[in-house]
Parts: sequence; C-alpha cells; structure tokens
Amino acid sequence: MQDVPLLISRILRHGATIYGSSQVITWTGEAEPHRRSFAEVGERTAQLAHALRDELGVQDDDRVATLMWNNAEHVEAYFAVPSMGAVLHTLNLRLPPEQLVWVANHAADRVIIVNGSLLPLLVPLLPHLKTVEHVVVSGPGDRSALAGVAPRVHEYEELIAGRPADCDWPELDERQAAAMCYTSGTTGDPKGVVYSHRSVYLHSMQMNMAQSMGLTDADTSLVVVPQFHVNAWGLPHATFMTGINLLMPDRFLQPGPLAEMIESERPTHAAAVPTIWQGLLAELTARPRDVSSLAQVTIGGAACPPALMEAFDTLGMRVCHAWGMTETSPLGTTARPPAAAVGTDEEFAYRVTQGRFPSGVEARLRGPDGRTQPWDGASAGELEVRGPWIAAAYYGGPGGEPQRPADKFSEDGWLKTGDVGTISHDGFLTLTDRAKDVIKSGGEWISSVELENALMAHPEVVEAAVVAVPDDKWGERPLATVVLAEGATADFETLRVFLAGKVAKWQLPERWSLVAAVPKTSVGKFDKKVIRKQYADGGLDVTQL
Amino acid sequence: MQDVPLLISRILRHGATIYGSSQVITWTGEAEPHRRSFAEVGERTAQLAHALRDELGVQDDDRVATLMWNNAEHVEAYFAVPSMGAVLHTLNLRLPPEQLVWVANHAADRVIIVNGSLLPLLVPLLPHLKTVEHVVVSGPGDRSALAGVAPRVHEYEELIAGRPADCDWPELDERQAAAMCYTSGTTGDPKGVVYSHRSVYLHSMQMNMAQSMGLTDADTSLVVVPQFHVNAWGLPHATFMTGINLLMPDRFLQPGPLAEMIESERPTHAAAVPTIWQGLLAELTARPRDVSSLAQVTIGGAACPPALMEAFDTLGMRVCHAWGMTETSPLGTTARPPAAAVGTDEEFAYRVTQGRFPSGVEARLRGPDGRTQPWDGASAGELEVRGPWIAAAYYGGPGGEPQRPADKFSEDGWLKTGDVGTISHDGFLTLTDRAKDVIKSGGEWISSVELENALMAHPEVVEAAVVAVPDDKWGERPLATVVLAEGATADFETLRVFLAGKVAKWQLPERWSLVAAVPKTSVGKFDKKVIRKQYADGGLDVTQL
Repeated sequence: MQDVPLLISRILRHGATIYGSSQVITWTGEAEPHRRSFAEVGERTAQLAHALRDELGVQDDDRVATLMWNNAEHVEAYFAVPSMGAVLHTLNLRLPPEQLVWVANHAADRVIIVNGSLLPLLVPLLPHLKTVEHVVVSGPGDRSALAGVAPRVHEYEELIAGRPADCDWPELDERQAAAMCYTSGTTGDPKGVVYSHRSVYLHSMQMNMAQSMGLTDADTSLVVVPQFHVNAWGLPHATFMTGINLLMPDRFLQPGPLAEMIESERPTHAAAVPTIWQGLLAELTARPRDVSSLAQVTIGGAACPPALMEAFDTLGMRVCHAWGMTETSPLGTTARPPAAAVGTDEEFAYRVTQGRFPSGVEARLRGPDGRTQPWDGASAGELEVRGPWIAAAYYGGPGGEPQRPADKFSEDGWLKTGDVGTISHDGFLTLTDRAKDVIKSGGEWISSVELENALMAHPEVVEAAVVAVPDDKWGERPLATVVLAEGATADFETLRVFLAGKVAKWQLPERWSLVAAVPKTSVGKFDKKVIRKQYADGGLDVTQL
Repeated sequence: MQDVPLLISRILRHGATIYGSSQVITWTGEAEPHRRSFAEVGERTAQLAHALRDELGVQDDDRVATLMWNNAEHVEAYFAVPSMGAVLHTLNLRLPPEQLVWVANHAADRVIIVNGSLLPLLVPLLPHLKTVEHVVVSGPGDRSALAGVAPRVHEYEELIAGRPADCDWPELDERQAAAMCYTSGTTGDPKGVVYSHRSVYLHSMQMNMAQSMGLTDADTSLVVVPQFHVNAWGLPHATFMTGINLLMPDRFLQPGPLAEMIESERPTHAAAVPTIWQGLLAELTARPRDVSSLAQVTIGGAACPPALMEAFDTLGMRVCHAWGMTETSPLGTTARPPAAAVGTDEEFAYRVTQGRFPSGVEARLRGPDGRTQPWDGASAGELEVRGPWIAAAYYGGPGGEPQRPADKFSEDGWLKTGDVGTISHDGFLTLTDRAKDVIKSGGEWISSVELENALMAHPEVVEAAVVAVPDDKWGERPLATVVLAEGATADFETLRVFLAGKVAKWQLPERWSLVAAVPKTSVGKFDKKVIRKQYADGGLDVTQL
C-alpha cells in the first residue's frame, strides 16, 4: 500500500476542493453573519502560510500562537501553521495573565495572531513575552494600544493580500508536531500537550464516524467550545474532512446571541460545556425561540445534569454526552445508547453515562490495589486509556525533553486520566470521582461525589463536600463537611441515618463538620485541597460519631 | 501522542468487547439462520489463531488461504490470520481452476481453510498445489473425496475446540502485510495486491464515516459481495469497528434466498455488484416481498443502469453507487449527492455518477498529452489515485520483489486506474471508458463507450462495438462494428447521420463493419482485443465513408 502520510494539509485540500462550497459562518453581531466558503478558506490559508514563511520568517517547528475567538481566520491559522510544518499554539484567553505569559514563554512562541477585540488582554503582557517577534492583528478592535510595542505589528488582511492562493504543502512526517495546547493545571504549572498530524487526522476520521458525531455536508455545527480549548474538540479539522458547515460565534458567547444564531442559522449540531447550556436554557425560558434544528448537542468538559438533558429534550434539542480531556484530543467516549436500548426505559440511563469508547481508544480501570478491574458496572478504578490520539508525554521539561510524570502515565505508557469510575459489560463508562478525591479506605474506594450527592438530597442540606482524611486503622476515611439551611433541625446523627439508606454501611462517614460555606475554586468547583488543609491544620470543628 | 499501531487485532478486540452482542448471521437454507455474537467470534478467533500457530505451525508472514463463502467462520479467519501476524489470502472461487492453482502457488499458501461445499472445486486442484501442507474444512459438505489427499486434513470445529478463548495479540508494525487478493486479470497472469494492517484500519474508519457508509449498531449489513473479492469491500472489518450486524448469505446467492433473507432479517444495508440486483429485481417482480428495510444499497464493481436504480427506488430500496478496484481496497468514491442537490432535479444526475472521493483518496486525471486535466466535468483523462489504502505495487515478481509496471503506476507513485472519465468542480467522478479502449485521435480522446451507447440507441442496431484502429493522419480513429436487427433497412450513412446529432463531428467514425455478433469475453463483456485483431488481420469487411 502507498505510504501516504496522514497530514493536516490533506484535510485542508480535501475540504477546499471536494467541499469547496461548504461554509465557515462567523457571527458578527450584525444582521447578517460573515460567510466564507471552504474554497476561500483554502486560498486564504495558502496566503497566510506564504506570509508567515516569506514575510515573518517562520521556519519548521517554530511555534505560531493564536489568541483568538472562534472565527474563520482562526480556522485559517488552524490549517496554515501545521500544513507548512510549523506548530500552532492556541493560547487560552481565560487563563490568568501570569499563566498566559508562562505558557507563551514556555512554548517559545515567535508569532501571535490575535483578534483586535483581545488586544486589551494581550498588550499588557507583551513586555513579558520573551520570544514573540511578530503580532498579527485580525478583526475589529482598537489598535492604538499597539503603538510603541516591541514586536513588529501586522494587519492580518494586509499581510496575506496578494500572495499566492495555492501552496505546494510539504510532505511531512505524520508523527511531527502539528499543534499544542496547555492544560489549565489547577495544581502546578500548566502542562503542554502536543498533537501530531497523525493524531489530528485519525481523531478527525473518528469524529466523522457514524458512532461518534457522524455528520455530513447537510449539517452545520455550532462550535461554542473555544478553538483555544483542545482544538475546539477537533471540530474544525473534522468538518473539513466531510464538508460539515461551521457556525462560529466569535466573541458572542452570551445566551442571547447564541439563541439568535441557533434560530437564524439553524445548526444541526452544537458543542459546548454544560454551563453554556445552562445559560441558554434560562434564555430560552425567558424568551422562547425555535432551537429544534439541534438534533445533536455534544456536551463535554463536565457531566451534564440529567435535568438539563430532559429540559432540552422537551425543546427538541438532543443532548449527547461525551467525555475527554486535553490529553485525549479530546474524544474519549460518546454516550450513544446501544441500538437495543433505544426507545426503552434503559435509554436515558445510558445517555447520562459518559458513554462508550470509540475504536481508537482502549480503556482499563486500575483498582485500589493497582489491578485491572472487570467491566461489570460495579468495580471502580482509575481510568487509563491508550490510543493514537492519546498523549504519551507532556511538552518540554527544563532541558526540553518530554515529561512523563508517574502520576500521569502508567509504567506501560497508558495515560492515567485521574478520573475514577466503572465500565459496564458493554463498554459504557460512568465516572464517579476524581482519583485525588476518592477515599482509599481499607483497600476499597469510596466515592466522595456519591456521598456528596446522597447528602445533598437531604432537604435541609444546602451543600456538602466529602474529603479523605488520614485514619490509623483504615488508611483513609471520609470527612463530611456540611452547610445546612437556615433554621435546619437535622443533626449529624440524622444525616448519617439518612445516608445509611443510600450507601453501603462501611462507607458512612464518622467525622462530620458544620461549615458556613464550602470553599470553591475560581471556576466554582469545590476546592477539596483547602478543606483537607483546614482539617490537617486543625481549622475545622469536627464531631466524631 | 502515543505510538499505537493501527492493527486488525485492535478492530477485533473493539468489536468483541464494546459491541459483543452484535451478530454475524449466516444463512443456512433452513428456517432459522445461524447467529453468532461478536463476543463469540472474538473467542473463536483467538482459538483459531492458537490452532494455526500451535497445531499447524503457522509462522509470521506465512500465507493462510481461504476458499470460502461469506459466513461466520470466514470472518473468524479474516481476524485470526492477520492478528497473529500471518497473511490472509482469499482465493477467488470463480477463477478458472488453472488460475486458482497459479495464484495459490504464487502466494505460496501453506494452509487452505475451505468450506465443505467447495471441496468438489478444491480436491482436484490439490495435487497441483506445491506449498499447501494443511487443509481445514468448515461447514457442511461430503468429505469422502479427501481420502488419500497429500496435505493433512483438519475439521475446523475439532481444530479450534478447547483452545484458549483469548489471545495476547502481538504488537505488529502497522505497515506489515495483513491480507492479499489477486485481481482476476483479463490479460496476463493475475496480480497480487497486498493490504497492510494500516490500510485495512484506515479503510475501515473511512467506511464508517457518515459521508461513506455511515452505519451504526442499529444497522445490519447484507454482504453479498464475496469475502474472496477485495475483503468483501472491507465490510467485515468496518462492521467490527462500530458494531454493525453482518448478514452473510453463505452459498445461497440466488435471487430467491436473497429475497427471503432480506424479508426475514430486514437488513438496512446491502452491498453487491449490479448483476445480483438485476436478478433480485426479476425475483421481486415475480414474487413481491417487503424489501423496504434496505435504506442503503451499495452498488459497485460496474455502473448500475439508471433504470435499475429507479426500479429499486420504487421498491423503497435506495441505491448508492460506489467505485473502486482491488488495488483501492476498494473504496474509491461514493455517490452521495451534495446536500444542496438533495430533493432537486439534480439529485439523480449525481447518483448515476461514480461519486466523490473520500478524504483518504486523492485523484487526478491525466489527459491525452499526459497533463493533469481540470475538474470541469468535461475534460477527460485517465484517473490516477493516491492514498494510504491504494496499492503501491503488485506482489512478488520472479525474484519476490514488488512489481511496479509503468502502465499501472505513474512515475511519482500514483495508481493508474485504467479508467477514463471526467471530474466535476465538486469532485464527482464520471467514468466513460477504459483507457485501453479509448480512441486517441489527433491529441484528443474519443470515448468508445459513448459512441457505442449512441449507436445502440438507434432502433435497428442490436449491438455496436467501437474500437481504435491505426490511422496515418490522426494516430487512431474509431472503427464501428455493428449488429443490425433482422430486416433492418439502415445503412452506414444513415447510422452516421444518426450519430451526428449526438456526438461531435470530428468523433464520427469513417470505418464501419457489419458483423453477425460482437465477440465477447467469458463474463459477457465486449472483447475489443479480438475485434482489433480481426481488423489488423484483415478479417473484417470494412466500408470507408
């Protein structure tokens, strides 16, 4: 068979020719969105590559960063940079400024392509970016703050204008780096994940398989998930493979504009994290609109509350759960119920799982003793995955070498996801906890999340966070911290009895603490690190039952 | 990213676990077909591999041949042989006996797995098979003829019984040979095409993409196309990737049983060459049955007559054209109309083309002067293709080295398909002729098939074959040989005038010959070699207009 490398330039060329009339639609906030055909994107991508090489001197393996919303120009950068042999580094505009500076310096970005609307974020950082030589500005936004900055400044449209609209893309090694993305890293420095041409190509094929996303050129995908976040879940690449139209919200991510673009452009698919859909649901409740075009809504990044799924069902929007992470490109699972369950009472139970693995992802659960757990829907373990679009290492340690920390990669090279859960006999994953939060008690695992959910089902419990604390006899035991409603009458014994009906007896916490509020991270998740530290420092008033 | 090789064993493992309850249904001619779950196929595949290695001594790279119908055991061989590192050689039971002997010796098959019902075909050949050490017999059929044959004889079920039902499949190089298939070769010896694990894996992913076949575990695929023919168009591999149920007709390929299995098992997809569907249509006309479950019928191997497509439309069966060849694994094109054409008058015009190329197949047309032709729907050229599941060479010349004949592979490694046609601006291929039959006249090409179709549209013309003959001025010119109906009054001048309204003037033949019948090949195609020879030998009575 021919030894044809799997390259991003092949995806681009295919989309721009075979599906030349498909469109990238960018929302502008005006009456009519901006429309650009795949053929035009193909031409402008070639122009951008010529500009980067001939005008900006970008060489193989140089990092070209983007600080951009989801829009047509960002799609052009997605294809131009890797196709010419350089590496696309998508900067996460939600990162704290000091982390943005850290990752841009760590990646040694030579060029940053930035949306005009994001200059207020970028300009103050420029003095701290040690390797950036060029800033390319695209789209609306005041440029005045750029006066006197150190890097050379270019206007995107002027830079690419008049250059050749085709390109003889180089035949690269398919294992060469194509793109990189840093994990947000709640602990320690952000970690860089490097995607190869091969991994992006195979991931795109998988996304297009009927068991995954399964769209065609009859579809339009509303990509709410940001392009700076795991390649927008691979959608820009996948869509060029099969002519799926792209609907890009640019900076208009508020529920109002989203509802408006769904009603007017009638996308058949959308992808976003649950919080976006929570907001959209509130908007649709306040101002009903027709969103029934959305036959498939991929929700990932966090579990979708079942109530939200049901609410969207009644609106004619069909939610499909997916699980993945930056290290998994991200497609790890998709919750399409088995054919036999469709239309039965079991269907919903399958839809609220994380889903089942595609052919490119192998999975195993490692139990408390390190042994592989059976797929019986009951035995819990930390999920480990393997496959051609799963990270093997993180980018560049101090000496530039790949990093394979033992808490992230198993001795035989599988990725440790840090997620704990079960897998059913037919391969459906249910995640119950984070590995760092699970309570390791006497060789068995207790899910902190299960205890929390059970506790929060009590009418007088406002919030409950359960963490592991050291225990002489069992290694670890659960500590329950509880926020009670005003005027609540329940005491810890009452809550323990309430719990006893819902979880196994050996899982019941002995240690209880009443708190005014559960400490939270910047994104609103329970900050269990803080609770564990409060306990260790004696800062909690603990009752032992 | 992890360097995980794309192996057939991964497809098997995925199907047997994630889709363990999907089924391979084999028709038996009895009231109830035989059903075997993917999980059971997985176990029996492991048992077969253990048997081949431990009992028959099959080593890496050894060729294991099959002479089998489409059935569950053939699927087991499909997975066991490549997964263990050996090479599956599917023997085409329609080949003339001397060619079967030639290919089995050329491939140096060590083992043949044969269906009992095919022993009458195999046993007489055994004395001529120089490398075959073992014959494994599966399924019903009289074994008595095997008494006294030279190779050791094994019963399939006895051979695999009691062996371990799992296997630690080796981590092979994905570019290693997995399977081979010989082209039937109308001229010269058959040519062996060798598929790699990588090519099979990528082809399977493509088959499952929504723009190609796009099925899920809710589907059942009736695989009429034989497993000895280009891996049954890749269906057994593709179905294990996504849990599609397989319906296998075994030896029951007659229209009656096919209609019966469609009505009773309600497959949603089927794949076969047009002649099968012609027969089925006649059967359904004689004895109507409900075949409306067939939402998608893939027709390839030859163009499907538009009238046949329309006839099936009215029965609720939806035909989808596909083009490919042994050298292309075979998926080369699929005729799904562009979304914008669906429901319009243009839709049918797209459906009768060969279709458009999937992301893994790059295509170009080489015109009469060797230059690449534009995709304008009018400029004709020989189709050349490139991609990771396209052959780079043929198997084993005299010294064992790969063969790259210049008439089959371009100087830069693309496959010359031998098909001539046009490609539209949106990538739809329309084939008009075979390269060897096209008439090269003064630097332009004249399609013999177009002239024939135009001539046969005349009410008094029964058959017409047009071939290229040497011409001093133009290089080549068309010679029309015509069979007229009894009592016909048309003369050549009349026919030429009739043609003039349908093709360009410079394409009109000057040379005409009346014949009693057009010579045909064993499969009923016009044998143009014979006509060209008759003309060269002066054996035709030619009128010059």
